[in-house]
Amino acid sequence: MPDTTAPAFGANELSADAMQRLADFTAPYRVDGRAPIRLDDHDPADLRDLRRADRREARQWLDERTTWLANRQHTLAAQGRWAVLVVLQGRDAAGKDSTIRHVMARMNPQGCNVTAFGVPTSEELKHDFLWRYHRHLPARGDVGVFNRSYYEEALVVRVHRAHLDSQRLPDALTRDGLWDRRLADIRAFEEYLGRNGVLVVKLFLNISRDEQKRRFLKRLEEPEKHWKFASEDIRDRARWDDYTKAYEAVFNATALPDAPWHIVPADNKWFARLVTASILVSEIGKLSLEYPNPFAADPNALAAARRRLANE
Amino acid sequence: MPDTTAPAFGANELSADAMQRLADFTAPYRVDGRAPIRLDDHDPADLRDLRRADRREARQWLDERTTWLANRQHTLAAQGRWAVLVVLQGRDAAGKDSTIRHVMARMNPQGCNVTAFGVPTSEELKHDFLWRYHRHLPARGDVGVFNRSYYEEALVVRVHRAHLDSQRLPDALTRDGLWDRRLADIRAFEEYLGRNGVLVVKLFLNISRDEQKRRFLKRLEEPEKHWKFASEDIRDRARWDDYTKAYEAVFNATALPDAPWHIVPADNKWFARLVTASILVSEIGKLSLEYPNPFAADPNALAAARRRLANE
Repeated sequence: MPDTTAPAFGANELSADAMQRLADFTAPYRVDGRAPIRLDDHDPADLRDLRRADRREARQWLDERTTWLANRQHTLAAQGRWAVLVVLQGRDAAGKDSTIRHVMARMNPQGCNVTAFGVPTSEELKHDFLWRYHRHLPARGDVGVFNRSYYEEALVVRVHRAHLDSQRLPDALTRDGLWDRRLADIRAFEEYLGRNGVLVVKLFLNISRDEQKRRFLKRLEEPEKHWKFASEDIRDRARWDDYTKAYEAVFNATALPDAPWHIVPADNKWFARLVTASILVSEIGKLSLEYPNPFAADPNALAAARRRLANE
Repeated sequence: MPDTTAPAFGANELSADAMQRLADFTAPYRVDGRAPIRLDDHDPADLRDLRRADRREARQWLDERTTWLANRQHTLAAQGRWAVLVVLQGRDAAGKDSTIRHVMARMNPQGCNVTAFGVPTSEELKHDFLWRYHRHLPARGDVGVFNRSYYEEALVVRVHRAHLDSQRLPDALTRDGLWDRRLADIRAFEEYLGRNGVLVVKLFLNISRDEQKRRFLKRLEEPEKHWKFASEDIRDRARWDDYTKAYEAVFNATALPDAPWHIVPADNKWFARLVTASILVSEIGKLSLEYPNPFAADPNALAAARRRLANE
């Protein structure tokens, strides 16, 4: 296993060394708002020094990470104080669904909820834009995954103005600076979540234009993948550069040292999964998670409970 | 009718003169954060120059206002762009329930929802503190009334720390400055709502200690009012000064020129209702409400629709 990936690690404890290696491995993909970013500077086909890694080896690295995540989820749920929200964004065919399937594979579904946000319902359109997302936030002890998220309110809604019209905001509120205000509201919302025990991990699966074309064509060639192809995909592809600008505005407004974005190279699915899993381990590894000890206040209670059961 | 109350006004239109009179009448109760406030400076028994007003006359003033509100609600609903959230706070026996009953009396229940927030459920306790409130926010075109609100998260939860413990926040997040952070989060949330078409009207029914005692004793004397008396009432009364401090912190942190609080003298119920209704008329009167005109784009469509029906 190359030096850039974390060494094998135990069920719950991450050594300082393992943490450091994970941090080093994921650092190039971390965007924390210290400097403005351009998507052009992020290579979707990046593989670091793992270009020669064989698939079996890569599967094993992923396996270690997803196993760790599953174990850690157990502690998270038992403690019931922190919640984890994974925000997954990406263009069409970037691999959002399959990344969730592979990275969250070992999670206990009781306590891990994935919400895919598509076209809003008419009831949702009648409310403030965060309303539909807030109600699906994970409870303490849970992991929530947003497959697309409130960031779409400054992405698809920004690129296709008809979506904004359907939200029926008063005219006075849609004038100059709407998108800056919206991104400021999202930033404040995430700050609020952080203060209230919700760890937000933000990931953008960064696919290239060529790779998207390849994947679209493949979908059209395989009848069992036709359902994944929507006419919106072609519509959005035609607005590639507008989306690039909208994404850059998102990253530059909402990436903060305490709430970074991660731009994950996504042209190679196996690598996107490895990076995603590594980021999750790294971020969740920073939480102060421990099993609660109901006997801490009264150490005699444990012995007493044992005795009572034995003497039954 | 004295000069301090608004003159009779039509169904939908408020003249500039009527608006000005309402603004003058409600101004003493408006708190907008320009100067720190102390509750001691606000007289719960204030009646302005209406000390001699007779009850029949007062009922007529209230009637005019509630009728206007009902008519205006019709436009609000037809337009479907703005929402109104009335946040009603007050100590026990301040008259929150009866104020809602009398001031909202003529509203169409379809489009006017009152949510009373009591003890949170175990599901609600597992989420960030705004979660239970956000899901009950009014949709565009609707009026929502919060009988107690997210402000309790910095009132009862602050005064009785057991409530905070039951929220099971990670220890690291409950240290110094928790209440300042919570109030900053509420301020940001209301700013967000304002930007998204939700008018928030905040009212505190200000009752005196003596009047509360009188109302509690009355409840205990009338068997059909016993159900309104809870042991928490006595518990909270013993913490009167702590609540005063917590309320003052709330007003000083969350009253802003664009999001004022209103401290309503509540020792006289009829006056509290008149002031509350006047504030609602005054605030809702500022919204740009109008019936949508589906024929605006094509004036011929109206005549064509008439013709088609006539020739049927």
